[in-house]
Amino acid sequence: MNTPHEGVAFLGPRASYTHQAALKAFSDSSKYDLQPQVSIEDVFKSVQSGSCARGVVPFENSTNGSVVFTLDLFADAHQRYPDILVCGEVYVDVHHCLVGHMPKEAHSAATTSALTSPHSSGHATPTAAHPSPAIPRAVPLVSLKGIKKLYSHPQAWGQCNAFLTTYFKGIERQDVSSTSRAAEIVAADTSGETAAISSEIAAQVHDLDMLAKGIEDTSDNKTRFFVLRRGNHSAQSNGDSNGGAVDTDTPAYKTLVSFTISHSDPGALADSLAVFKPYNINLTSINARPSGIASWNYIFFVEVTGRRLKEDTGAVNAALRDLEKVAREWRWLGSWENMLLPKCRPLGKIDEVS
Amino acid sequence: MNTPHEGVAFLGPRASYTHQAALKAFSDSSKYDLQPQVSIEDVFKSVQSGSCARGVVPFENSTNGSVVFTLDLFADAHQRYPDILVCGEVYVDVHHCLVGHMPKEAHSAATTSALTSPHSSGHATPTAAHPSPAIPRAVPLVSLKGIKKLYSHPQAWGQCNAFLTTYFKGIERQDVSSTSRAAEIVAADTSGETAAISSEIAAQVHDLDMLAKGIEDTSDNKTRFFVLRRGNHSAQSNGDSNGGAVDTDTPAYKTLVSFTISHSDPGALADSLAVFKPYNINLTSINARPSGIASWNYIFFVEVTGRRLKEDTGAVNAALRDLEKVAREWRWLGSWENMLLPKCRPLGKIDEVS
Repeated sequence: MNTPHEGVAFLGPRASYTHQAALKAFSDSSKYDLQPQVSIEDVFKSVQSGSCARGVVPFENSTNGSVVFTLDLFADAHQRYPDILVCGEVYVDVHHCLVGHMPKEAHSAATTSALTSPHSSGHATPTAAHPSPAIPRAVPLVSLKGIKKLYSHPQAWGQCNAFLTTYFKGIERQDVSSTSRAAEIVAADTSGETAAISSEIAAQVHDLDMLAKGIEDTSDNKTRFFVLRRGNHSAQSNGDSNGGAVDTDTPAYKTLVSFTISHSDPGALADSLAVFKPYNINLTSINARPSGIASWNYIFFVEVTGRRLKEDTGAVNAALRDLEKVAREWRWLGSWENMLLPKCRPLGKIDEVS
Repeated sequence: MNTPHEGVAFLGPRASYTHQAALKAFSDSSKYDLQPQVSIEDVFKSVQSGSCARGVVPFENSTNGSVVFTLDLFADAHQRYPDILVCGEVYVDVHHCLVGHMPKEAHSAATTSALTSPHSSGHATPTAAHPSPAIPRAVPLVSLKGIKKLYSHPQAWGQCNAFLTTYFKGIERQDVSSTSRAAEIVAADTSGETAAISSEIAAQVHDLDMLAKGIEDTSDNKTRFFVLRRGNHSAQSNGDSNGGAVDTDTPAYKTLVSFTISHSDPGALADSLAVFKPYNINLTSINARPSGIASWNYIFFVEVTGRRLKEDTGAVNAALRDLEKVAREWRWLGSWENMLLPKCRPLGKIDEVS
């Protein structure tokens, strides 16, 4: 079986959450060659150019919402990525840790003293407006006194709000391109004055100490990633060739569509969204972004249940024909298996359906 | 006329774009006391507590899209701001400048040499994926060679992409809380190795030199701000008391509504959006944010033409009665005069209508 290695581009660096998503979907290292990219756009480029067969990009976090960089690449105002299609989704649990260099005096018996440290009571200060500030889910494993600067990805601050408000009020925060990069920077600084919010895996990769674990606000903090492939949006090759499943329009699949509307036409947006209802297709998400063409004009992204078929039959195909009549422009951005359903196939097989 | 000074809270610091918006709406310093706040949430707090009669917060940029922090405060998952209503909007032209300390050797005749500087050709490097990278609208007024670090608000990077890609590829970027704060930091650093992206006003306030002007990607880059007041969302005091205009449901006004839906009900979102069409009410914007209650549940924000009236008559009131039947929960977030229409009153009078 001389299967050639297929390239999978993902938003790096190694040990990033996107890397975890890529490993979940493409676990067989004898088949896939995972290639870290510097930016989400580089992942799109790799797939569009064909240098990688698949790409993995973050799309949405359950706490922070959509990743606008990814949406703007799908919007593709400059027609650079005309052949990018979503062919799968991966959910990754996000458990943030505070990582850094263990304070020297803390290597022994630090755990108990941390809670009685004068640095923090373990509660944010109540104020008139916030009489009951959220209590962080985690307590530090060591004293955090010496830390003067934190590094992380911008999305992580919003996901660790209670912990940061309680233990790091007023401490400088430096945004970097990924939580994994944050760990890398802190690893290079042995002063002990910096710490990073990153995954446990990133801490291990960069040989950092765990200062606090599970510091995210909500225990079910998840990020959803999309698997990208190169395909053709034009009519003759529309459907995703996902084997021969019969239940084509059930919640077992999802479809992403973008469209623009005539902003002078009252009801154009509602009309565009209404095309799915007669076919009993549920709208599972909606996003709007500036069109990039005129101010206060938007491009809309809707995700619906069901999938587009190669043969022009089925509910999604019918709804998209109706969308054609009411939207100004629209684009099918892919159909894939819904991974939120308990009955779906194991994630390790996502490669086989895309 | 002993009119007391009315407090107006705005997202500071002074000389920020929000300050410009606040000055546009509340220009009479004998009537209004403009008070800078550290965060958007502090503006909400000031208005909710009654310590300020009005608040001004950024809502949306024509290039970068919505300000998610503002949306999440309107979502108000913890019921901290139950009485916040939008009562006006202000549009401010965003012209970004690169500001810093003029290089010493450049004080004379720098302008011409800048263009022939070995630092940059004035064009981003074409690549296979971007054979024609966007050409920046502005050229530097001096050599930018010595600059090793840039400061700005995260939204500004996205708005100055062509300029930054051309002249500052690979240069470190530090996110700070506002473009005005960026100018303040750079003003304190006389090494000449830092520069800020900020407004011209912020440069003047902090006595910085202009290194490049109008570096934003699109000439019509605008930010929309909301004016907030304290009001009651409950039924008995719904309408905004905007005088006695007759054209209650024309595009002369806009209304903001948030709602949640039952995610298990196919078509609930489309149904909720469809309530406006029978009354010929146009949807002018839509946003979705994580509900903050359960993963992959959203709160939706729609902005429509027309306004809610105190007397329960008119198109918007009727549509909201219909929304009540299909949405799980909904909330009226205010009605105000549409400032995008050429026929509307001068912006200086926004204070009188809210």
